[in-house]
Amino acid sequence: MAGNSIGTIFRLTTFGESHGSAIGGVIDGVPSGAEINIEKIQQQLDRRRPGQSKITTQRKESDTVQIFSGIFENKSTGMPIGFIIQNSDAKSSDYDHLKDTFRPSHADFTYQEKYGHRDHRGGGRSSARETACRVVAGAIAQQILASVGIEIWAYVSSVGEIDCDKPYQELQSTMVDQNIIRCPDQGAANRMIARIEEVRKAGDTVGGTITCVVHSIPAGLGEPVFDKLHADLAKAVMSINAVKGFELGSGFEGSRMLGSEHNDIIDQTKKTTTNHSGGIQGGISNGMDIYFRAAFKPVATLMRDQPSITDAGTQTVVKGKGRHDPCVVPRAVPILESMTAITILDHYLRNKATKVT
Amino acid sequence: MAGNSIGTIFRLTTFGESHGSAIGGVIDGVPSGAEINIEKIQQQLDRRRPGQSKITTQRKESDTVQIFSGIFENKSTGMPIGFIIQNSDAKSSDYDHLKDTFRPSHADFTYQEKYGHRDHRGGGRSSARETACRVVAGAIAQQILASVGIEIWAYVSSVGEIDCDKPYQELQSTMVDQNIIRCPDQGAANRMIARIEEVRKAGDTVGGTITCVVHSIPAGLGEPVFDKLHADLAKAVMSINAVKGFELGSGFEGSRMLGSEHNDIIDQTKKTTTNHSGGIQGGISNGMDIYFRAAFKPVATLMRDQPSITDAGTQTVVKGKGRHDPCVVPRAVPILESMTAITILDHYLRNKATKVT
Amino acid sequence: MAGNSIGTIFRLTTFGESHGSAIGGVIDGVPSGAEINIEKIQQQLDRRRPGQSKITTQRKESDTVQIFSGIFENKSTGMPIGFIIQNSDAKSSDYDHLKDTFRPSHADFTYQEKYGHRDHRGGGRSSARETACRVVAGAIAQQILASVGIEIWAYVSSVGEIDCDKPYQELQSTMVDQNIIRCPDQGAANRMIARIEEVRKAGDTVGGTITCVVHSIPAGLGEPVFDKLHADLAKAVMSINAVKGFELGSGFEGSRMLGSEHNDIIDQTKKTTTNHSGGIQGGISNGMDIYFRAAFKPVATLMRDQPSITDAGTQTVVKGKGRHDPCVVPRAVPILESMTAITILDHYLRNKATKVT
Amino acid sequence: MAGNSIGTIFRLTTFGESHGSAIGGVIDGVPSGAEINIEKIQQQLDRRRPGQSKITTQRKESDTVQIFSGIFENKSTGMPIGFIIQNSDAKSSDYDHLKDTFRPSHADFTYQEKYGHRDHRGGGRSSARETACRVVAGAIAQQILASVGIEIWAYVSSVGEIDCDKPYQELQSTMVDQNIIRCPDQGAANRMIARIEEVRKAGDTVGGTITCVVHSIPAGLGEPVFDKLHADLAKAVMSINAVKGFELGSGFEGSRMLGSEHNDIIDQTKKTTTNHSGGIQGGISNGMDIYFRAAFKPVATLMRDQPSITDAGTQTVVKGKGRHDPCVVPRAVPILESMTAITILDHYLRNKATKVT
Repeated sequence: MAGNSIGTIFRLTTFGESHGSAIGGVIDGVPSGAEINIEKIQQQLDRRRPGQSKITTQRKESDTVQIFSGIFENKSTGMPIGFIIQNSDAKSSDYDHLKDTFRPSHADFTYQEKYGHRDHRGGGRSSARETACRVVAGAIAQQILASVGIEIWAYVSSVGEIDCDKPYQELQSTMVDQNIIRCPDQGAANRMIARIEEVRKAGDTVGGTITCVVHSIPAGLGEPVFDKLHADLAKAVMSINAVKGFELGSGFEGSRMLGSEHNDIIDQTKKTTTNHSGGIQGGISNGMDIYFRAAFKPVATLMRDQPSITDAGTQTVVKGKGRHDPCVVPRAVPILESMTAITILDHYLRNKATKVT
Repeated sequence: MAGNSIGTIFRLTTFGESHGSAIGGVIDGVPSGAEINIEKIQQQLDRRRPGQSKITTQRKESDTVQIFSGIFENKSTGMPIGFIIQNSDAKSSDYDHLKDTFRPSHADFTYQEKYGHRDHRGGGRSSARETACRVVAGAIAQQILASVGIEIWAYVSSVGEIDCDKPYQELQSTMVDQNIIRCPDQGAANRMIARIEEVRKAGDTVGGTITCVVHSIPAGLGEPVFDKLHADLAKAVMSINAVKGFELGSGFEGSRMLGSEHNDIIDQTKKTTTNHSGGIQGGISNGMDIYFRAAFKPVATLMRDQPSITDAGTQTVVKGKGRHDPCVVPRAVPILESMTAITILDHYLRNKATKVT
Repeated sequence: MAGNSIGTIFRLTTFGESHGSAIGGVIDGVPSGAEINIEKIQQQLDRRRPGQSKITTQRKESDTVQIFSGIFENKSTGMPIGFIIQNSDAKSSDYDHLKDTFRPSHADFTYQEKYGHRDHRGGGRSSARETACRVVAGAIAQQILASVGIEIWAYVSSVGEIDCDKPYQELQSTMVDQNIIRCPDQGAANRMIARIEEVRKAGDTVGGTITCVVHSIPAGLGEPVFDKLHADLAKAVMSINAVKGFELGSGFEGSRMLGSEHNDIIDQTKKTTTNHSGGIQGGISNGMDIYFRAAFKPVATLMRDQPSITDAGTQTVVKGKGRHDPCVVPRAVPILESMTAITILDHYLRNKATKVT
Repeated sequence: MAGNSIGTIFRLTTFGESHGSAIGGVIDGVPSGAEINIEKIQQQLDRRRPGQSKITTQRKESDTVQIFSGIFENKSTGMPIGFIIQNSDAKSSDYDHLKDTFRPSHADFTYQEKYGHRDHRGGGRSSARETACRVVAGAIAQQILASVGIEIWAYVSSVGEIDCDKPYQELQSTMVDQNIIRCPDQGAANRMIARIEEVRKAGDTVGGTITCVVHSIPAGLGEPVFDKLHADLAKAVMSINAVKGFELGSGFEGSRMLGSEHNDIIDQTKKTTTNHSGGIQGGISNGMDIYFRAAFKPVATLMRDQPSITDAGTQTVVKGKGRHDPCVVPRAVPILESMTAITILDHYLRNKATKVT
């Protein structure tokens, strides 16, 4: 109800502010007896953490996960997994100049209106720092899904106006981490990185998109009507900070097509010859690849002066200070994979209740 | 869990197949003492019903709602509202030729895989007929929201490659129903209608987009982290049949922008001078208009032959028969308004729990 | 949230007031492919309906269930089951004298305080008439559970101070309906019936208890901590009108015992030699019989004058009028079975998510 | 779904095993701006902790709560409260002799059946240690409720066959902690303590009951039909380890009464002259005191030999070893208060959604 949980059977609840002592969460509904490799969780956290390259924020946080329960001898016990990540490099004083100011396109104003106060130190609960907890749960979900053959990967498909023109079928998941922007097309990656450096030097930021792919998903996942698989994916993805759009399969481009172009013909192997549907029909997976794309707005914190107002309503200038990302997409790749894994595993478990025996 | 409910406090649960005796639902969490005009519910249903114009399916259904409970002397009692809509014009025999065939880009195959059977008669539960129940709940939610000043309207913003180029600020909600396509820009509307007629004559179908606007929403609605207002809107909208994409405010175009262009500067009236955010920041409404766009794929049922396979896996041809929409968007306008109203009212009620007194 | 739904996977939502046109509901999460015999649903409704014997209310209602969806050729389709029961014998005028009066120990006052109005005609939503919808869902759940061997039965174990002294192990489920009080011990049944007749003639009412038994339940149902199987059973049972107490296994008597008396020793067949635990340990079924007892208060409507106050706060007298039950327990037997079946089936389905494969 | 959460708006999710490094939880839906005194939380934890008197287990645990988020300068921020309690005195080796044995009337067998393994060290997740997390949330809920005038207290009303004969109206909440058994009737308390000492010396254990009272609750809390206030209280209380029974107001005794004795007559002040209803009518509070009683079975761990079986199914003897409570009720008093506070606050917040404005 208060919005800090996601999932129905496999369910993550998170807590923590960017400048408190720790963030953390509880993962409930983890099936028992699944192999969980804690190092692999840390590897996903490391893909998200600040300070990993020259095109991300220079804040240093190790983002080390500490697990209290629910895993024993590298296996899930079926009990909830409680965990925290200590906040190590929180320089609250970096934010002192913002105490009475509403930063443009941040959550300062809306939190103030809703709760009667706000946490000016890095955004408090509205900070993207909270997404580290999603990565913990997502990395666990990805391991469980991998044990039944389901694979999830994501990559940066555009930065500003620079697109990766190749479709995902021509790209390789193993190439994603070969460069710091996480685009498996090295030519596009180079252009994207150059663009981010340019923008960063100008004290500006830039948006981008990420494409996510799910392979080897069985047919039958997803519920009709309101909890269609792509409706739940859309919610999970749109809940990530800075995401402004979601499209499945043919997406917005599909709205410009004719039915005779768009329909996916089924062949004798029960596969479709095209996949404009993006692997989901009537809200339920059909066994083809699921793929979708998320749009991220440019980061709102600039290294430039911006006009704004104070709590008291007087005009002021927000100074560009602190350590921030010029573009959020490279660090958001594991977050998108995580939200996808959480959603797919939840539906995998939900689907088990469809029949009595 | 089984996907037939939406909302947390204001909550709709629906039932019914396109070719059963009736569809219907229960609306729970309706606050007591709200004025409910049943004629206005019927008016919204009439905007959705088949056979309303030459560019919609020629099936005739009156879609008359019958309410059993929860409304007394035109006021909500706080008790759940149970209702049905009788199915009147169900020609099941129209579908006999499809009994053993998987129609391309329909839910036939996925339902068969999930449930071990499927309803070939008009798609059963996967039929868009189910959305009539959403309109009943949405029309009630719209009336309750209107009583606190919140207005919701939607319009067709593109059909295939024909766009309504004007932004919503230059359009008038009162003009939406002035034409059968429900685009308040009459020039664009004429081109859209002509395009649909062309497509229909070719036995084909075409996609489109709908834009939805929420005026006069108070700041503070939406929950942080997972139940961000736009995440719940995305889910609600993506759960509508044929929707493939959702974008809030600047949306996908925003991903191509710089932060210095995209940020919405707050002026001394606490309004923003631009509204790329689409009225939501950090998942919470900021008091500006909320606006978003949904992409609809072309209807999958064509009046043409299409190759497919039978249940047994042998090749077959799906004949183009029956009465179907060449383009879904004009009838989807009230559905989009309804899902928006359900979501906004739910968050309006949720927000009341934010403080003790 | 508004309290008209129960269950998580197998989930019933009900609507309707005692003096509206119909009551009804939606049953979601019904697994697909289960045999559903509609006559058996009606048989359970007939055990609950008014006017079935001289010791129940003389109101006549056929309580015929009309099902709209979710069942096809006597099998569940996996889609939600929507249904109504028409209200046939509603004599609203019987209640005219109560329009401005709070009846003692009814919900008149509390509904007025909560909703700003109330339905004086038979209690509206607070009427026990609503339990007919529970019986529809319960009868379906009982059939599905029976298909996996789980049997549920209940019987009247006391009326006022008259107890059925035999434990359930010495009674037979087939004997429950051999008499109108539904106590399988004929000697006790005769005394109970005589007592109710006596009380009825005096214009009074009397309370009682019902015992419920679940046979052949597999070990492993129930969730640790908050959703213990008996915690969910307690909620389901306590939600039935007039229930004031619930006890599992040894219950209140168990609180007077020593651990050395109370512990259930496990033998080599993995059965326990005693069953003070009532078939549940740590919130999870252990494969032994589950048994529990519910206490029902005497019906609040008397055929006698009672002092009370009007809405305006002036003193008045509530006249004893209308057609009411002198004792609720014989008609409550199928309701208790139903709430038990709903809860057990829900946990049966929940348990399927405990493991990945 | 997996049972580790309770509440709808005010919602607690817990994690942790008795012999892991820590237990903890997340409290979501805390309204913003409420005064929270962390010392008072610790005081309630101290009332629950082991080793507090000669009649409780001699295990020493400080049970110090560590809060990570959601409270700032002694006020709730509206953000989720994450917390842990370190496990300090876990002597896992105490349990080595139990590794392959099912202890009688414990959850060993049922966890093994459900999850394919179990935690023999103090019961793991099924240990009453988990209830410390409930006390953290309950103590916060009690403080918020106190700020709107609602008071909750509980006391031991029986130990084995020794009853506190006085009704709660003749007892004082300030006297509860005047003795180690937490019975405000000193005469009864002395007899209870003597009985526990006797039982303890015999290596045995004994059950008991606790009565809980809620004062100054407004009329209107609770939802009709399934989420009746007492149904949710019953679930919350029955979810506490060792609870076997729950009764509201007149309870089981009420089932033996006549309607003419049991009905609560409303006087001109809108109070009832008796309160057999226990403050709840039709599932909704009527403004009178709520009171109920919970039955606790005797602790299953004895300091005596008991026969049982091993995992392999061979007969064995469970030795009486370790440090355990001879009677659970004195330490359970704050747990019962906590579950009550969690439930009442949740319904207090739910009730705010009943009207639009």
